[in-house]
Amino acid sequence: MEYTQNLINCSRDELLDQLKDVVKTKRFKHILRVEEKIMTLAEKHGVDLEKASIAALLHDFAKDLDSQVMRELARQYWDEPLLEASSDEIWHGFAAAQIAQEHFNVKDKSILTAVAGHTIGWFEMDQLFKILYLADYTEPGRDFPGVKKARKLAENDLDAAVTFKMSATIKHLIDKEQSIFLPTIDIYNCWISKI
Amino acid sequence: MEYTQNLINCSRDELLDQLKDVVKTKRFKHILRVEEKIMTLAEKHGVDLEKASIAALLHDFAKDLDSQVMRELARQYWDEPLLEASSDEIWHGFAAAQIAQEHFNVKDKSILTAVAGHTIGWFEMDQLFKILYLADYTEPGRDFPGVKKARKLAENDLDAAVTFKMSATIKHLIDKEQSIFLPTIDIYNCWISKI
Repeated sequence: MEYTQNLINCSRDELLDQLKDVVKTKRFKHILRVEEKIMTLAEKHGVDLEKASIAALLHDFAKDLDSQVMRELARQYWDEPLLEASSDEIWHGFAAAQIAQEHFNVKDKSILTAVAGHTIGWFEMDQLFKILYLADYTEPGRDFPGVKKARKLAENDLDAAVTFKMSATIKHLIDKEQSIFLPTIDIYNCWISKI
Repeated sequence: MEYTQNLINCSRDELLDQLKDVVKTKRFKHILRVEEKIMTLAEKHGVDLEKASIAALLHDFAKDLDSQVMRELARQYWDEPLLEASSDEIWHGFAAAQIAQEHFNVKDKSILTAVAGHTIGWFEMDQLFKILYLADYTEPGRDFPGVKKARKLAENDLDAAVTFKMSATIKHLIDKEQSIFLPTIDIYNCWISKI
């Protein structure tokens, strides 16, 4: 697709070229599948297709950077002391948002917020944020127990799908005996209270 | 059993009489089963039997109090702002610890801490704390998927059993679409980091 809204300082092809240089091949393919998925969800839920494409292509831009670089970029974007003791899994979204605004001159808050929080979600999420969060979770290459349910929910009920992903992600971390980033729980509590 | 160590200002029989006055019959029976279970675990793991009995009989002392009273007592014991927006499920342990020190003149930190945190556990837990936390979870009246595994672990590996309960409890809250008290996750993270 052609980018025509001046939301980013390059074309889609140039963005893809830069992406290829900084992420591994496997991840590049995942990112293309997230874009494919987000376009379907954007059409379904009436979200701007150009913003959806940009958000999808940028969301994992930082994921193969060196850990320390990633953390520093994340902290530049979000001044949250809890980030310090966190991990790549949390940092890479905020780092990508920082790159989006500094390197790609993205100013659209909706895109930046969706990219920043695509792993943990957020207290308030607009439609673009929700479909990026869900496209990343349900792109065609994903295969986990519950993925069919997640895909169905993402088509029919974005809020239910977001809550489903939040709940399943926390349970998955526990099953893997991994630590949980505290804001994730704050955000989960916020979403659960809306049900 | 006879209380002989001056850990509490009454006999076991007097404690039982007072307990009967403040908790519902069903809960009174649960408390007796927790005492039964904790005695087995105390013998197994070399914990003082008198402390174990007192901790078991006091742990749910506050659970049928009025919510506001419970919260006020909890906050007197633990000055934690997050308690405010919490629930009976969290408050009742801290409220019981407050009653233990004020009304029953219990000064033993080990008993007080175990009673206070018997629902959420704590960052550091001594043997008494662990067996109260686990007796409450595995007393003979409990019946849930995994209770047999929890009972076996509680006999053979207290730390593994504590981590098992913490993990299962968080997952259970999520399955019931309930909010999670943030310190529970802080404590879980601390225990997971020790594995």
